Amino acid sequence: MRLRNLKNKEIIMDQSPYLIRDPENYRGKWKEVFGNDHPIQIEIGMGKGQFIIQNALANPDINFIGIEKYDSVIAKALLKIPENVPNLKMIRGNALEIDSMFDHEVDCIYLNFSDPWPKKRHHLRRLSSHVFLEKYESIFKGEKVIEMRTDNSDLFQYSLVSFSTFGYVLEEIYFDLHKEKMPSITTEYEDKFSKDDLPIYFVRCLKP
Amino acid sequence: MRLRNLKNKEIIMDQSPYLIRDPENYRGKWKEVFGNDHPIQIEIGMGKGQFIIQNALANPDINFIGIEKYDSVIAKALLKIPENVPNLKMIRGNALEIDSMFDHEVDCIYLNFSDPWPKKRHHLRRLSSHVFLEKYESIFKGEKVIEMRTDNSDLFQYSLVSFSTFGYVLEEIYFDLHKEKMPSITTEYEDKFSKDDLPIYFVRCLKP
Repeated sequence: MRLRNLKNKEIIMDQSPYLIRDPENYRGKWKEVFGNDHPIQIEIGMGKGQFIIQNALANPDINFIGIEKYDSVIAKALLKIPENVPNLKMIRGNALEIDSMFDHEVDCIYLNFSDPWPKKRHHLRRLSSHVFLEKYESIFKGEKVIEMRTDNSDLFQYSLVSFSTFGYVLEEIYFDLHKEKMPSITTEYEDKFSKDDLPIYFVRCLKP
Repeated sequence: MRLRNLKNKEIIMDQSPYLIRDPENYRGKWKEVFGNDHPIQIEIGMGKGQFIIQNALANPDINFIGIEKYDSVIAKALLKIPENVPNLKMIRGNALEIDSMFDHEVDCIYLNFSDPWPKKRHHLRRLSSHVFLEKYESIFKGEKVIEMRTDNSDLFQYSLVSFSTFGYVLEEIYFDLHKEKMPSITTEYEDKFSKDDLPIYFVRCLKP
């Protein structure tokens, strides 16, 4: 997500009922935040929020949490949320600290158009590297499910190997998602790439 | 492999010391065929044999067996073998009967440019389907290793899911093998596709 300053981002963030600024205080207590024990699905690096907001609106019985590290970006996402979406929260935070935010509470992680970190020496910064898969171990409740979408073939092939060698079973793979199984809910990036006829890679994987 | 009639194919097959016509007689006895207990690697659907022959020449301490179902094709492969290659045999046979040919003797299976069987109702005929993976279970000696190359993206994504859901760990994946890691030994098809600048997909997977 490219960073652009957004005026009044501090005001937006202060006034939004959807923003969680201190997620570590809710570790192990997300049931209380939502007031129910519905499944929790999170998107790490949600960008401007289209995917997570539309998912929350379409699936009222699932709780969604979007995580984004940049203030300017999260402020844009907060502005997009319609009134009264009780099953949605957003966290301003760093993926490296994900295991301080959740304690065996997450059912599914979405990684959409994550930073590809193309240089080999940065590969462990990829959200699908073993460094992060190790962190995700303690945030998942039961069966671990990760869904990834990307336009980057290098990141994608790296991620397939990373997931598989970490013990995930690759259940569904598409090299051109929009041609093979058009999703009803998309991200902003996805719309752009799809419009330009660029293929979107998709994998859904699962660790028992 | 397209089928073309080859004159004298019966004569070629009758006279070649490399052809095994009745492989079921050697099930459990391949050590005796080669006169040693070197690792055995097989290529199912070897076509005209370039890959398996070059591998045999380059790796004298590994025994190679190429399997091909069409007489005309295997006759062409037999003609290509130089004199005195003690670590190479060829089998005229059907992959469906692979488990009657080997009994816990194989170390690695190569699936190169296998028939993609594009129609959904034929998918179980793919050499990477669970039908075949089940057959391979009893032919592998210890750790099971499969290497696949194909130009067909649909077959490739199907195979990744098939291998993974069957318990194989995907250890190495390339979406464009010749750009990312040029192999020293190639198949005839591969040379053609590579010349036309078409990408070759590659996966190496392993089941403990």
